[in-house]
Amino acid sequence: MSLGAPANPLWGGRFEQGASTLLEEINASVHFDYRLAEQDIAGSIAHARMLAAQSILSTVEADTIVNGLNQILAEVIAGEFVFDPALEDVHMNVESRLHHLVGPVAGRLHTGRSRNDQVALDSKMWVRDAIDRLDGLLKDTIHIIVSRAEEHHADVMPGFTHLQCAQPVTIGHHLLAYGEMLLRDRDRLLAARRRLNQSPLGAAALAGTGYPIDPSATAAELGFDSVFRNSLDAVSDRDYVLDYLSAGATLAIHLSRLAEEIVLWSTPQFGFASIAEDLSAGSSIMPQKRNPDAAELVRAKSGRVVGGLVTLLTVLKGLPLAYSRDLQEDKEALFDAADTVELCLRTTAAMMSGLVFRPEKTRQDAELGNTVATDLADWLVTSKNMPFREAHNAIGAIVKHLERQGRELKDVDPAVLAGLDSRFRDLPAAVLTVENAVARRKSPGGTAPARVLDAARALRELNERFAAAAPL
Amino acid sequence: MSLGAPANPLWGGRFEQGASTLLEEINASVHFDYRLAEQDIAGSIAHARMLAAQSILSTVEADTIVNGLNQILAEVIAGEFVFDPALEDVHMNVESRLHHLVGPVAGRLHTGRSRNDQVALDSKMWVRDAIDRLDGLLKDTIHIIVSRAEEHHADVMPGFTHLQCAQPVTIGHHLLAYGEMLLRDRDRLLAARRRLNQSPLGAAALAGTGYPIDPSATAAELGFDSVFRNSLDAVSDRDYVLDYLSAGATLAIHLSRLAEEIVLWSTPQFGFASIAEDLSAGSSIMPQKRNPDAAELVRAKSGRVVGGLVTLLTVLKGLPLAYSRDLQEDKEALFDAADTVELCLRTTAAMMSGLVFRPEKTRQDAELGNTVATDLADWLVTSKNMPFREAHNAIGAIVKHLERQGRELKDVDPAVLAGLDSRFRDLPAAVLTVENAVARRKSPGGTAPARVLDAARALRELNERFAAAAPL
Amino acid sequence: MSLGAPANPLWGGRFEQGASTLLEEINASVHFDYRLAEQDIAGSIAHARMLAAQSILSTVEADTIVNGLNQILAEVIAGEFVFDPALEDVHMNVESRLHHLVGPVAGRLHTGRSRNDQVALDSKMWVRDAIDRLDGLLKDTIHIIVSRAEEHHADVMPGFTHLQCAQPVTIGHHLLAYGEMLLRDRDRLLAARRRLNQSPLGAAALAGTGYPIDPSATAAELGFDSVFRNSLDAVSDRDYVLDYLSAGATLAIHLSRLAEEIVLWSTPQFGFASIAEDLSAGSSIMPQKRNPDAAELVRAKSGRVVGGLVTLLTVLKGLPLAYSRDLQEDKEALFDAADTVELCLRTTAAMMSGLVFRPEKTRQDAELGNTVATDLADWLVTSKNMPFREAHNAIGAIVKHLERQGRELKDVDPAVLAGLDSRFRDLPAAVLTVENAVARRKSPGGTAPARVLDAARALRELNERFAAAAPL
Amino acid sequence: MSLGAPANPLWGGRFEQGASTLLEEINASVHFDYRLAEQDIAGSIAHARMLAAQSILSTVEADTIVNGLNQILAEVIAGEFVFDPALEDVHMNVESRLHHLVGPVAGRLHTGRSRNDQVALDSKMWVRDAIDRLDGLLKDTIHIIVSRAEEHHADVMPGFTHLQCAQPVTIGHHLLAYGEMLLRDRDRLLAARRRLNQSPLGAAALAGTGYPIDPSATAAELGFDSVFRNSLDAVSDRDYVLDYLSAGATLAIHLSRLAEEIVLWSTPQFGFASIAEDLSAGSSIMPQKRNPDAAELVRAKSGRVVGGLVTLLTVLKGLPLAYSRDLQEDKEALFDAADTVELCLRTTAAMMSGLVFRPEKTRQDAELGNTVATDLADWLVTSKNMPFREAHNAIGAIVKHLERQGRELKDVDPAVLAGLDSRFRDLPAAVLTVENAVARRKSPGGTAPARVLDAARALRELNERFAAAAPL
Repeated sequence: MSLGAPANPLWGGRFEQGASTLLEEINASVHFDYRLAEQDIAGSIAHARMLAAQSILSTVEADTIVNGLNQILAEVIAGEFVFDPALEDVHMNVESRLHHLVGPVAGRLHTGRSRNDQVALDSKMWVRDAIDRLDGLLKDTIHIIVSRAEEHHADVMPGFTHLQCAQPVTIGHHLLAYGEMLLRDRDRLLAARRRLNQSPLGAAALAGTGYPIDPSATAAELGFDSVFRNSLDAVSDRDYVLDYLSAGATLAIHLSRLAEEIVLWSTPQFGFASIAEDLSAGSSIMPQKRNPDAAELVRAKSGRVVGGLVTLLTVLKGLPLAYSRDLQEDKEALFDAADTVELCLRTTAAMMSGLVFRPEKTRQDAELGNTVATDLADWLVTSKNMPFREAHNAIGAIVKHLERQGRELKDVDPAVLAGLDSRFRDLPAAVLTVENAVARRKSPGGTAPARVLDAARALRELNERFAAAAPL
Repeated sequence: MSLGAPANPLWGGRFEQGASTLLEEINASVHFDYRLAEQDIAGSIAHARMLAAQSILSTVEADTIVNGLNQILAEVIAGEFVFDPALEDVHMNVESRLHHLVGPVAGRLHTGRSRNDQVALDSKMWVRDAIDRLDGLLKDTIHIIVSRAEEHHADVMPGFTHLQCAQPVTIGHHLLAYGEMLLRDRDRLLAARRRLNQSPLGAAALAGTGYPIDPSATAAELGFDSVFRNSLDAVSDRDYVLDYLSAGATLAIHLSRLAEEIVLWSTPQFGFASIAEDLSAGSSIMPQKRNPDAAELVRAKSGRVVGGLVTLLTVLKGLPLAYSRDLQEDKEALFDAADTVELCLRTTAAMMSGLVFRPEKTRQDAELGNTVATDLADWLVTSKNMPFREAHNAIGAIVKHLERQGRELKDVDPAVLAGLDSRFRDLPAAVLTVENAVARRKSPGGTAPARVLDAARALRELNERFAAAAPL
Repeated sequence: MSLGAPANPLWGGRFEQGASTLLEEINASVHFDYRLAEQDIAGSIAHARMLAAQSILSTVEADTIVNGLNQILAEVIAGEFVFDPALEDVHMNVESRLHHLVGPVAGRLHTGRSRNDQVALDSKMWVRDAIDRLDGLLKDTIHIIVSRAEEHHADVMPGFTHLQCAQPVTIGHHLLAYGEMLLRDRDRLLAARRRLNQSPLGAAALAGTGYPIDPSATAAELGFDSVFRNSLDAVSDRDYVLDYLSAGATLAIHLSRLAEEIVLWSTPQFGFASIAEDLSAGSSIMPQKRNPDAAELVRAKSGRVVGGLVTLLTVLKGLPLAYSRDLQEDKEALFDAADTVELCLRTTAAMMSGLVFRPEKTRQDAELGNTVATDLADWLVTSKNMPFREAHNAIGAIVKHLERQGRELKDVDPAVLAGLDSRFRDLPAAVLTVENAVARRKSPGGTAPARVLDAARALRELNERFAAAAPL
Repeated sequence: MSLGAPANPLWGGRFEQGASTLLEEINASVHFDYRLAEQDIAGSIAHARMLAAQSILSTVEADTIVNGLNQILAEVIAGEFVFDPALEDVHMNVESRLHHLVGPVAGRLHTGRSRNDQVALDSKMWVRDAIDRLDGLLKDTIHIIVSRAEEHHADVMPGFTHLQCAQPVTIGHHLLAYGEMLLRDRDRLLAARRRLNQSPLGAAALAGTGYPIDPSATAAELGFDSVFRNSLDAVSDRDYVLDYLSAGATLAIHLSRLAEEIVLWSTPQFGFASIAEDLSAGSSIMPQKRNPDAAELVRAKSGRVVGGLVTLLTVLKGLPLAYSRDLQEDKEALFDAADTVELCLRTTAAMMSGLVFRPEKTRQDAELGNTVATDLADWLVTSKNMPFREAHNAIGAIVKHLERQGRELKDVDPAVLAGLDSRFRDLPAAVLTVENAVARRKSPGGTAPARVLDAARALRELNERFAAAAPL
């Protein structure tokens, strides 16, 4: 590659910069792909060992290379490695340093390998590590949610549909819904991990190689389950990044829903819970403010992960085989999404850990909006053998009647109801309480405190087992 | 729900339409959710049977209901069922017809159930069916690709990187890359299928129910592997639609890449292949045109599936629990994406089946662009024990030299090269042939014809096994 | 174009359908582009007249054609025109009917024209009409918002930041913010209208034509401001659809924000306003529910418009010149987005028209959260010449102190404050009232009732003028 | 804001980090919003001067503050200002430094202002600057394209539809299509600039202020055309960022189309043009490669801008008024998109400037695919008074006949055609030449060289005027 031609005079005054500098600016990736350094070195070590095992390199050559690489790895881990933008990418940076350390034998490392399969390998390993980190964070967050749910398994709050009070539930029940979402996120990530765990190393530039390499050896050393079957696919596939971004976007959307609720719960109108002070922020003009900034940012950052997913889908659309430089545009979307979901998940875990619920307020609001209407209808069905639709109509009329008086079911007793409809003469007063409404929903997965504890236990066990389980 | 109020005079002349008509227009879903009718009826039959088994309904009541539902199912399948927009959605249409057929006992069917868990059930079952249809199409398409790859396993074509001729490969090798992508698509779909296969029926409106229902019975009858653990999650979860859309978008992107190549191959410049005449279209003005319309539309429609995914992600962002009407906006995106990917896949299968390759042109072009340069470098490494980097530089200089003369490697013989660099004195002429370049890349997954046949066989077997395999 | 080849046996059992049927299925557009019929006929009439004026057709020929087209137009408007899917698209349907009506002379209409410039013309005119419809709806909706704002210009409600009560504002002030957004939407649409108003007719297939056509004549007859300068661009440009989708997405996002607030205001916790009953919906299981379905759907449908925008951006990405069949995929995204934003806007207008505010509750909540803290700080700055930052700190400490006692500023009087900080000795009691807080913010654009009326008047006038104004 | 609480023990081992550190990590913005520093200081200077003019500050106070700010500005421009992440954002960094420089009087600068209107001001000014930069780049790029088009106004190349050779055009004609797109981009940006040019300063936190500020004075000093009418809108509006991102996405899509063509033209199969060597890159494994990396990256980076647009649309969806912390997520999407489109545009300008066309190859290919078929049909229409549709059919049959013989129209002469269809007896041989085909398309905007020169001149003049013109 020849750089250094002068800027074309036709460009006009705005383009002082020569074409070559421009190429460097648009093409260079080391300012972000330096993050692949550890994976790159691990891959090179495995490759060198395989080359020796296959007698493509001598043992001495391979040892020299591996020692050099190990020294570079130490420099990287210690933060002492200096990445040079002029060397374009992480691979050239490492290779150049290796040459400096061990001399011309460094040139033999690239035998039977190309940057195309090398970068596919590095980024697959990076995604695999990112999945493992995220999975660990998910496990811990689910653990926190389950603990908080158990703590509040019997505290009553309004269950909402359409953000209208619908039926009483317990705080624990509400929280566990998010635990279930996050468990599905773990499942999604682990399925993606299994799907990606096929080594691309050995595909070379695109067509395989004439050297007698052993891709299964490097795959095994690097923890892959299997080896690519098609070299063109191996270098042009970015499904594993799409899978990470899709799973990340779904996770981020889950977190945005919880964050929205935390913002709502923190309003004086709801007042259901209050976020820890050290996750709130103040105002430059209003001295009294304590804002749920952490929740707002988690909610907002979901947009960023969705944006990253759209970025890569658009990049890949209509791209012919095999490697095109376009594929380089996968990395910043990936890194940003990974950083974002990890930060959002850590923040969510902290918020959920420190959230202080106000059960007296949630219980009070659980009575708003005639939330026991379904229970009254069910009582008619069960005690009076009325078809549900008919009972539904009867209660609807009563609610309407009370509304005209500015009252709700919480403001009346069985005698009042009996006055309106004689079938309520033997209505037990308890049917009008939110405690009864919660307690009687003891169908599996329902909101009765005992069922909430069952569900918490089941989720806790699945969460523990999940990590230990064999790949799906 | 009361409809019928007159239009507010404040709206001004443009709003002749009353609010109630507007609500009907924005709220009604039967014009699209009629597609859930079969799933809806199957779910109701299972629910009625469970209610009887649990003695919530009498056997007579349940039998009456089930008979009525079976009659409705027959009407739906026969295309005779008339959906009434005034009845808002598919559920109310079926329920209303049931009432007409069996009388007030129809009102008992809704015992212990809500539209919220009902619609979650119906749409999960619909997605499950859509996955099965798509998986079948994928299996067949992979089968076609493998067959075409075997047919052309030894026909040489240029392998491209950056759309520049890079190294010779075989047509079969190139085609199999798409087979690998589609197999991953199957894996992605089947993982999504397994993840969704947890029944939501029994969650009722959001909190479970006080009726002694048995959700595991309905789950088993309807082919689910398990039952929801949290009722709030059961009614507000749309992960399974996101999973379908994500998998569909990735699949559509794969197809867009292949379609782009077919468009390229069909140009007179490439001339690698020609699409079947009955998948081409003409021009209203240019009498001679035969355009690869089918491929262009497959390429374009990937945008539509990506758009559907973005639609649902945006809908779900920041939505509090449990059910909100927003969730109704999942269906049109889903249906459109499913129709689109199925159509694109059927079209791709037809294109791949009928594509006529021109091996004489692909072989000729395989020589363009000094595609054997790597082979020459490898020969220096192997025969002269040169480090790869050094050999790379030596060949680069020769190519540069030839380029100045308007020549390429295909235009010279070993003697010419030896004149430029004495190390080539004993170069076998075969090293300069594309046949040799292909044949020597016999590393696993490489482009050597024998390896292509191996890879085709392996993919064919995996593809067969995949369908038969138990859920992942 | 030859159709009718049998299905290739290689496809396997799943593909009963022949390739030609598939092409028809994927290629046909008449099931959606029938919506272009009126524009198509208007364009053809203008083209025929121009051909006659240029002596390319005889006057008799042109008259025959125009009469035929006018008859077809009448059939279309009356809903009597039968579109035949076998004729692929709206253009062929109209042309075929014309042939049926006037005989072979119909074949002369296509002189100097192609489907490529014809479809560009039709869709531009359709977008132009859609903009005009949407602009009218926006104007009316702004009118409603301004009226409601004037009605509530002095009713106090909490102004929120971070959904925390921040400072008192008036309901009218809050509503006008949405009026401003919608005025920008009008500006965005009208700029898009002006930008698109360049006729593409005369570009022919892609290169112009050898017939002595006069594109400026057809442009003038069809209401365009100017004529394309480059025929390749004229047939491959879809910027005007992107512009509509971008403007539509921004508008939809505005409406989603207002809808979110209506959902919040409708909760019993907020209770700020209640949506008209005939825009609410009930529940199949909970007899008491009245849900803000209309608002939820407006909020959700923003996702759909964003999805449509992403669809077209993805379709266009990387598409070479000039016309490709991919461009056909612009229409369904466009039609769906136009239908959606129009419906959302009509629904929003109806909601805003019928929304019943509860000023007693909004005034009460305006006191929550120490909303007059800034006013106290400002009083210190003004009366005691304290730097704002110092005053901010002083008030922050007082709020903190009161919070520990479970009190807020609304619960204390100047004497209490003077007890805490002697500088408050001469604090007028009025400084602690929300009425004062609102009244004193009389800076331009501020929330003081007089300013709200000013802003309402200004917006109303702009809104009126806007419609009448010349294109930007 | 109180930071420093210890990490909650419930978080588990993975969360060593305390909540407060997390808030700092998720909340801090100075690592990206430092880019607003110049705008921030300019805004503060204008604010201080206005405060003095309104006698809210004394002249001495204002001068002290302005001098301090000017010193900070000098430090920023010199790259000497040290941004401290602990101070959260750019505003606090500047304010803190000002306090250090001028003492407590710094605290008076924030009188009648909030971070909410301050950040709206800063980011509006940043977008305005970004638009001006981008507009300048567009102007220069259009200038280059026009120059290259004039250079090749008569060089024949195939015009493509469906990527099939359709009709001959000239290279200049093809290039000008991109000039037209970029001119629309300028129009889109300048309309966005005019729309945004309304100052938000004076809105304070959300409700205006009680201080007698003069927002029109600061607006005038800072180059705004007008002042906000509604303070809630002023602090919560991000339309101007959406407008930039929409315009940027459309521009990026335009560039992706041109980049795709450059990639195609650079293939040995097309061979229409070759990208400058210093914008190409080589391969680590294939010594001969010269890849059009710059074009590929421009093509790919369109995905990134689309992703940024989706990010912000998703962030804004459903956000209640007024300011929420979510709005902070606008900036990184904005900065990244601006950097990306500027880089892509500079790269495109460089590519277009240095692109070497091969007119001999483009002329040769212009004959491929029977590209003069339309001209033959037109000849029948004109000379034989045949309806176009009939002529179209006649030529289609001839092309089909020739195709069966492996021939095209380029391979025959009038005598051959006359043998097939006697109506061609008096066909001038010139009708079969691509030069004739190009020359006769002299309708306005057509491909005849004279028309191309006309269009180039018109575009050049518009491009010049555009910059000088008053805001739209």
